[in-house]
Amino acid sequence: MSYPNSLISSVKTIELTPEGVRLLDQTCLPNEIRYVTVTTPEAMADAIQRMIIRGAPAIGIAGAFGVVLSARCHRQRLANTPVELIQAILQDIALLESTRPTAVNLQWALNRLRDVLAQNENASAEQLSQRLEAEALKIFAEDLAMCLAIGQHGASLIPKGARILTHCNAGALATAGYGTALGVVRSAFAHDPTIQVFADETRPRLQGARLTTWEMVQEGIPVTLISDNMSAWAMKQGKIDVVIVGADRIATNGDTANKIGTYLLALAAKAHEIPFYVAAPSSTIDLSIASGTEIPIEERADAEVSVIHDQWICPADVSVYNPAFDVTPSSLITAIITEKGVFRPPFHQSLRSAD
Amino acid sequence: MSYPNSLISSVKTIELTPEGVRLLDQTCLPNEIRYVTVTTPEAMADAIQRMIIRGAPAIGIAGAFGVVLSARCHRQRLANTPVELIQAILQDIALLESTRPTAVNLQWALNRLRDVLAQNENASAEQLSQRLEAEALKIFAEDLAMCLAIGQHGASLIPKGARILTHCNAGALATAGYGTALGVVRSAFAHDPTIQVFADETRPRLQGARLTTWEMVQEGIPVTLISDNMSAWAMKQGKIDVVIVGADRIATNGDTANKIGTYLLALAAKAHEIPFYVAAPSSTIDLSIASGTEIPIEERADAEVSVIHDQWICPADVSVYNPAFDVTPSSLITAIITEKGVFRPPFHQSLRSAD
Repeated sequence: MSYPNSLISSVKTIELTPEGVRLLDQTCLPNEIRYVTVTTPEAMADAIQRMIIRGAPAIGIAGAFGVVLSARCHRQRLANTPVELIQAILQDIALLESTRPTAVNLQWALNRLRDVLAQNENASAEQLSQRLEAEALKIFAEDLAMCLAIGQHGASLIPKGARILTHCNAGALATAGYGTALGVVRSAFAHDPTIQVFADETRPRLQGARLTTWEMVQEGIPVTLISDNMSAWAMKQGKIDVVIVGADRIATNGDTANKIGTYLLALAAKAHEIPFYVAAPSSTIDLSIASGTEIPIEERADAEVSVIHDQWICPADVSVYNPAFDVTPSSLITAIITEKGVFRPPFHQSLRSAD
Repeated sequence: MSYPNSLISSVKTIELTPEGVRLLDQTCLPNEIRYVTVTTPEAMADAIQRMIIRGAPAIGIAGAFGVVLSARCHRQRLANTPVELIQAILQDIALLESTRPTAVNLQWALNRLRDVLAQNENASAEQLSQRLEAEALKIFAEDLAMCLAIGQHGASLIPKGARILTHCNAGALATAGYGTALGVVRSAFAHDPTIQVFADETRPRLQGARLTTWEMVQEGIPVTLISDNMSAWAMKQGKIDVVIVGADRIATNGDTANKIGTYLLALAAKAHEIPFYVAAPSSTIDLSIASGTEIPIEERADAEVSVIHDQWICPADVSVYNPAFDVTPSSLITAIITEKGVFRPPFHQSLRSAD
């Protein structure tokens, strides 16, 4: 598969190499471009948990590549005991799956590799390893293709000269490349260089400030950073035309889990009658659940909120509530953009064809 | 005037001394309790601008004390030229007034001292200085009394065991002591130790994290810190019963300027049918303006958003939008609490008696 260079970020978020999996360490951006290579499934689980790699589609790919590492680690030792080899890989899959509960893409990608295992019970260790690797690379390539298609479908929704507000980072750094919400931005910008982006900083991990503005600067797309609590006022001042965000899991009725703050942003968009779009690969749609109430919401460490750059921002004994995601009810969502097109309410009907 | 000790924060936010004006440096909290003494009106203007002291009522007091410093600085040199002395003080008043445009309390306090100047054109330099000091101390004492009254009126609105969300810091640190929104919290807690506070961290300056949680810890009031973008999700999860915020300026129709993010929070409260209260001394009500559209909104330096603890959170060439305040339309406000009572819509009628 090849794409014109200009369409794909020059940054490689994640790459499978003979030595392991090379990850751009997203905790160091924008101040440092640092790559780390992980060589074991445990190290990959740790990298996902610590958010060296993050973003629902990218986590799915990272999980899949983690399974490739698992096969590489176990295949010499267990080459002659295929049942044990498969058991060992399944254990690593369970470890990888436990790292982040909200995004469904991780589960979805790991299930594809579970299927490969189930279909290759009698294969040699070498064959099994090759087939897992082929499937993982397919997930990667499909994700890139899906992002490009999302970008094309989504661009049709962006008015000329639009000021687009986005939350967190749903860009090349959150996917195999190009991005979902930022894929729409990239695609729109290719046709209309007068568009502009507003990026919510996205506390507590600041992905909007650290990652989204950085991606936009790389692309030469004008970007303005705001604190999360400024969105409604920016809308009221007429500074925002469209909101686009990514998604970590979309229920059958269209309820969408995404980075904490998305729900508040959707309420603000609704109050100002500004279109609110969700952009995500169809693997994000979870038809096994009827509504957002069934989506598990990860809570993360207090220190993400109470400590910034190694310095406390509150007394050390203060309680913290730190949900990493929230659920935006479908009633606040104008349309959901996947690689298959633009889906509108009622989502419980339209999304069945999107999945 | 004396109050039971338990009602007043042990922290002295601002104090007029023979040496100058002693300020608790709020930019150092919660990590360090540092006091600075300013001795000139220029130094006071700088302290207000840099937010060593902040909060609408406290800024009013700081401005008034700045005028006392002005008189102290000029009275020896200009003792024999009363017209020049008054001119010099009026120039310093203009300087002090220019530091922060949104809060009306600064203007209101300075106008009281302008009146003292007008009424004492024939007074000696010594008398003039004494009368300015007496008026400034009266403003201070009245503010403390108003906060205590606001607390008593507001406490009647707080249900038993309420979880109260607040934004920024409208506490002892924002006033002569006791606080407005946090005055209500303190007063409610005195009768019902089962109440709890949720504090929005309040980017970009983190007054909620740095100041409000610190004040609550001093008082032994349970407090939970959240990022600003978590408010709606906390409400949706049933964690919040009441929202109370302070105010920097209230228009005749009830539209309220307050720290950026207040408007977004009010939208969230409305969507969840949670009461949204504004607590402020009546000096915050500006009957000279009909609605919030007439309130000037201060924009502050980009670096407040783009740099945290001396470290960039985005590439250095990214644009920033940094409005320090926003305006919450009166339609989102359940009631406004002043020292004169609880005022409900229609505010254009009720507020005339509150002012």
